[in-house]
Amino acid sequence: MTRHLHLNAFLMSTGHHEASWRLPESNPVANTDVAHYQNLARIAERGKFDSIFFADSPVLFGDVGRRPAGSLEPTVLLTAIAAATSKIGLIATASTTYNDPFNLARRFASVDHVSGGRAGWNVVTTAGPDAALNFNLADQPAHAERYDRAAEFLEVAFKLWDSWEDDATLADKEAGVWGDNAKVHPIDHVGRHFQVRGPLNLPRSPQGYPLIVQAGSSEDGKGLAARYSEAVFTAQQTLEDAQAFYKDLKARTAALGRDPNGVKILPGIVPVIGGTVEEALRLERELDELIKPEYARDQLARTLRLKPEDLPLDQQLPADLPDEDEIEGAKSRYTLIVTLARREKLTVRELIGRLGGGRGHRTFSGTPEQVADAIQEWFDADAADGFNIMPAVLPSGLEVFTDQVVPILQRRGLFRTEYTGSTLRDHYGLARPVRSGGSLEAPESLQAATA
Amino acid sequence: MTRHLHLNAFLMSTGHHEASWRLPESNPVANTDVAHYQNLARIAERGKFDSIFFADSPVLFGDVGRRPAGSLEPTVLLTAIAAATSKIGLIATASTTYNDPFNLARRFASVDHVSGGRAGWNVVTTAGPDAALNFNLADQPAHAERYDRAAEFLEVAFKLWDSWEDDATLADKEAGVWGDNAKVHPIDHVGRHFQVRGPLNLPRSPQGYPLIVQAGSSEDGKGLAARYSEAVFTAQQTLEDAQAFYKDLKARTAALGRDPNGVKILPGIVPVIGGTVEEALRLERELDELIKPEYARDQLARTLRLKPEDLPLDQQLPADLPDEDEIEGAKSRYTLIVTLARREKLTVRELIGRLGGGRGHRTFSGTPEQVADAIQEWFDADAADGFNIMPAVLPSGLEVFTDQVVPILQRRGLFRTEYTGSTLRDHYGLARPVRSGGSLEAPESLQAATA
Repeated sequence: MTRHLHLNAFLMSTGHHEASWRLPESNPVANTDVAHYQNLARIAERGKFDSIFFADSPVLFGDVGRRPAGSLEPTVLLTAIAAATSKIGLIATASTTYNDPFNLARRFASVDHVSGGRAGWNVVTTAGPDAALNFNLADQPAHAERYDRAAEFLEVAFKLWDSWEDDATLADKEAGVWGDNAKVHPIDHVGRHFQVRGPLNLPRSPQGYPLIVQAGSSEDGKGLAARYSEAVFTAQQTLEDAQAFYKDLKARTAALGRDPNGVKILPGIVPVIGGTVEEALRLERELDELIKPEYARDQLARTLRLKPEDLPLDQQLPADLPDEDEIEGAKSRYTLIVTLARREKLTVRELIGRLGGGRGHRTFSGTPEQVADAIQEWFDADAADGFNIMPAVLPSGLEVFTDQVVPILQRRGLFRTEYTGSTLRDHYGLARPVRSGGSLEAPESLQAATA
Repeated sequence: MTRHLHLNAFLMSTGHHEASWRLPESNPVANTDVAHYQNLARIAERGKFDSIFFADSPVLFGDVGRRPAGSLEPTVLLTAIAAATSKIGLIATASTTYNDPFNLARRFASVDHVSGGRAGWNVVTTAGPDAALNFNLADQPAHAERYDRAAEFLEVAFKLWDSWEDDATLADKEAGVWGDNAKVHPIDHVGRHFQVRGPLNLPRSPQGYPLIVQAGSSEDGKGLAARYSEAVFTAQQTLEDAQAFYKDLKARTAALGRDPNGVKILPGIVPVIGGTVEEALRLERELDELIKPEYARDQLARTLRLKPEDLPLDQQLPADLPDEDEIEGAKSRYTLIVTLARREKLTVRELIGRLGGGRGHRTFSGTPEQVADAIQEWFDADAADGFNIMPAVLPSGLEVFTDQVVPILQRRGLFRTEYTGSTLRDHYGLARPVRSGGSLEAPESLQAATA
């Protein structure tokens, strides 16, 4: 069987480049404009993308002067998009630290019903102390505690999604019996973090469960991904790093008794596409020149637990930075930034330019052919099952990718020319979870024995 | 100025009659069918209804054999409906007992953005012990405690919705300044139930706040309604009771320094409409004959804190029932049922028939002209500012009301023939809240002095 790659469109207001909103073409209030996002989703669906995706955090970060700030809650936004599309998958980020499992499980099941089986959930534990202050806490729970809660949260969600058997609805008008009580089960979950009786107040959804996505790359994050996730978004700067991550995560998945093909690994890539290399580089340079470095330096300083004045723009990072172990949130992001700066001996100004383009994700400027080559290289070299496409500018960057890169990938036989199924799981080639009977273990679909 | 009545369509799967799903015309899985609800909303919008509304509770109640069980989460469902309509208001029920204010405030603001200013929130405290068991609790918080939390929850939500000034977004591409930090404010709320720093991670929405709706009629419920709500849904069986409730709530509202016209009172009515009285009564009888009394008796017994065997079908209710004061949830519903049974000396079987049609709301069978008369009578007699229309069967009952009753109300000059505004607040004739500056008091719009 030919291996096909998977493409997810990671959407964010005017694009992933932090200065994209300043371009003449950009709608600077796109972040609250549902029509903007419906248009983007239709473009991605035209390009036969597996899915679109929104990041999220229940907190307003940093300086609102910098770029479009604030965003529509993703399950709401994706529902509005569902009504404007018919095939493309819809992946929303939601936090296990700042939600209740009953409400969130029901909301994802609702999105799955409303979209005809296109819901996905990017499971995050929400790093950083700021979000905690919006939820009655003085500081974030410790990293390990957040991941422990996340695992139990997922177990509860799986049980709730399984609490109605698929054939629990009888709809027997003649007999006057709508549902079969014997096929709707309390879950009676009692754990360290949650006590939830259930059942869910919603029949089982088209996909059974939404697609489970994970994006943390810390040790705890990889552990959670190996145990539960079906797709992984990751930031990798070099082929070697990407291969190492890919091999590691597939091995961890297999070690837990799961089929490693049941986890699709999608590194991020920020393509800046031009008709010629020069045109692509000119667009990249134009964008970088629109960055105001003081905004980015403030944020970099927060990430590194320094003051902005500790980071002169034309010097490299200070030599004595804390280890990842000492960081209580966004561990993998911290390490990625420090490693990138050290490896390439970047000044703070250069580092800011690199992060401004894709926030630590791989940026790639070139022609459509070169972008397709870059994608194929990693795909063929066991560094990726697909890519998280992060256009620097939206909608134009997504349009160019869809109209000029996708056809190349299709001609090479690497990417679908039509959707062959109707659910998000169909697109990723993943089975609909079989009801696990409410056991404490992960459901069977996540436990497929390696042959 | 002519007084116009307001119409809200209270939607529920195949209709408010519990046996409606058994009719040949009904889609018995309408409860999870987004296309069914989009169709209903389009019908109501054709009828120029102010709004549609969904009840909700985060728990699966009772016997799934009885009628369509489980429902789509209302903010998700209404977002899907927003995409299929353009004018009609969208009111979702959400619990202050089983949500966090930050997440819920943001979700309603998101629905308001996505719908172009059509969001409403029916604020409930969620009665009954069962929901508590889905949220880490052994029993529900006491009635007064739930209402205390509800009031603080609303204060936090108002502050979050006000945390961005309307002109906080500058979008100054030239200067590279997207937002004005001086116009985005932390709320720094510290209260008995919540500590929330804010600001919200979303610019202020088209309506400022969603329309605030309340439906509890207990003393605490009326207090909350008088203090905060802008529309009240209520169950009233007789003109006298409705007038008393109307007068009481308007007086309470005025006593708090608010304009009593700022609270629209909408009793529920379950119209069963026929071309002739006989046809209407025949439809009502056909529906009642499809009720299986054992389901309804089980629920009645739970509501009355009795065993089903304490309620022989052909006898009246037992003489010794607890007082409302002893009931810790759904107080007003308890009293309504007991009062109805005693006043009309109903047997259990007859009571079940009455409740099966509209769950305690006023049922009315007749011709379109008679239904219009019934509506006008209460409206003219200061018993209602409008009505919560609860069709016994959906979609047919809503279609008949829209096509045959609405035109009569329009001809009489009682109801709009076109929408004159674009937001839900416009339809109800309510002002957009002015930003209160994050004070601990209710915002100015809810404090309008009586002239």
